[in-house]
Amino acid sequence: MLLADIGNSRVHIYNGDEVTHLSHQRAIELYSHKQLHYITVKHQLKDRLKKLDNWRDISDKIILKNAYDTMGIDRKALCLSVSSGMFISAGSAITIDVVENGVYQGGFLLPGIQAYLKAYMDISPALQIEFNPNLLLDKLPQTTRDGISYGIIASIKLLVEKHQSNKKLYISGGDGLLLSSFLDNAVYDETLIFQGIKNALKKG
Amino acid sequence: MLLADIGNSRVHIYNGDEVTHLSHQRAIELYSHKQLHYITVKHQLKDRLKKLDNWRDISDKIILKNAYDTMGIDRKALCLSVSSGMFISAGSAITIDVVENGVYQGGFLLPGIQAYLKAYMDISPALQIEFNPNLLLDKLPQTTRDGISYGIIASIKLLVEKHQSNKKLYISGGDGLLLSSFLDNAVYDETLIFQGIKNALKKG
Repeated sequence: MLLADIGNSRVHIYNGDEVTHLSHQRAIELYSHKQLHYITVKHQLKDRLKKLDNWRDISDKIILKNAYDTMGIDRKALCLSVSSGMFISAGSAITIDVVENGVYQGGFLLPGIQAYLKAYMDISPALQIEFNPNLLLDKLPQTTRDGISYGIIASIKLLVEKHQSNKKLYISGGDGLLLSSFLDNAVYDETLIFQGIKNALKKG
Repeated sequence: MLLADIGNSRVHIYNGDEVTHLSHQRAIELYSHKQLHYITVKHQLKDRLKKLDNWRDISDKIILKNAYDTMGIDRKALCLSVSSGMFISAGSAITIDVVENGVYQGGFLLPGIQAYLKAYMDISPALQIEFNPNLLLDKLPQTTRDGISYGIIASIKLLVEKHQSNKKLYISGGDGLLLSSFLDNAVYDETLIFQGIKNALKKG
């Protein structure tokens, strides 16, 4: 059975082995004739998705104890991948959630790295930079490029560390690998959200 | 003598007593016939400003030791307001800079609070919220609104505290008062940047 996580920017499809990332349009073109179970946060697409006979919305199976009603279904699925830990999805937005023994403890959201960079660029052309992946975090920045890269990464890192204590970090999402390079005790795995869906389906 | 700080979004004019905030267009309409010294980060306006006979660009007087070349002139002026401290401008962008005995130590940039909110909103309509000014920072958020408000404020606060040690915070900018309510050992004063300009002019 194919599983799909339909995000704000892209569709992620898991065949049990690997994850394929596609635009919404392309995913529908390539997969509309295949049996597929999906979750989605793309509300604008819901009517169109319902018309696909082979696709089934399994959102109602994704139940995370103590989660709040409007919490994104993809965050809930990620939080169901492992019973305790800190869960980070670094995509269009960066979501950071804490779960203990299967019970949701709370969490928060930051813009995704591309959204951060666009926010700076929209403020002024002088703030249009390319993110510095080799940034050093142990000293105060002395250039605009590093001052922006540092603002993004150091603020995320400090916020993660504040709530991490001895928890393991489970990271997924398009910028997850990049972000994990700046964090300690972190595992990057792009299949996590699908492990969470599978765990939820087992219980349901 | 009137002093003006021409920012990316607005013009701030100081008459030695209070600060008036205007759109670029309105500031030029109301003040083009008055003697005024200005600094500007709005590069797109530079040619137009040069044509105003009564307005004088005093950027070359704003000299901060050890500052880097492309650092915004408004950040430099703010850093010249007091000889040692941590300086925060919370406007279109949030800039955070450290100065010790008049020597720049480095700094970093974050999106302004409105830029953050727009970044979330651009990611998804589900992330369009009104900032919660009464947010409590001592527990993990349990709603989208608080998760976003917390992401913004807690990340800024932690980054400030990491570099603050026993330094006093000097805060200006349109969201400065709001931001200062979440920070310790902070003074909000919208005239700081003009104190910095006056200090620079005294030296020059």
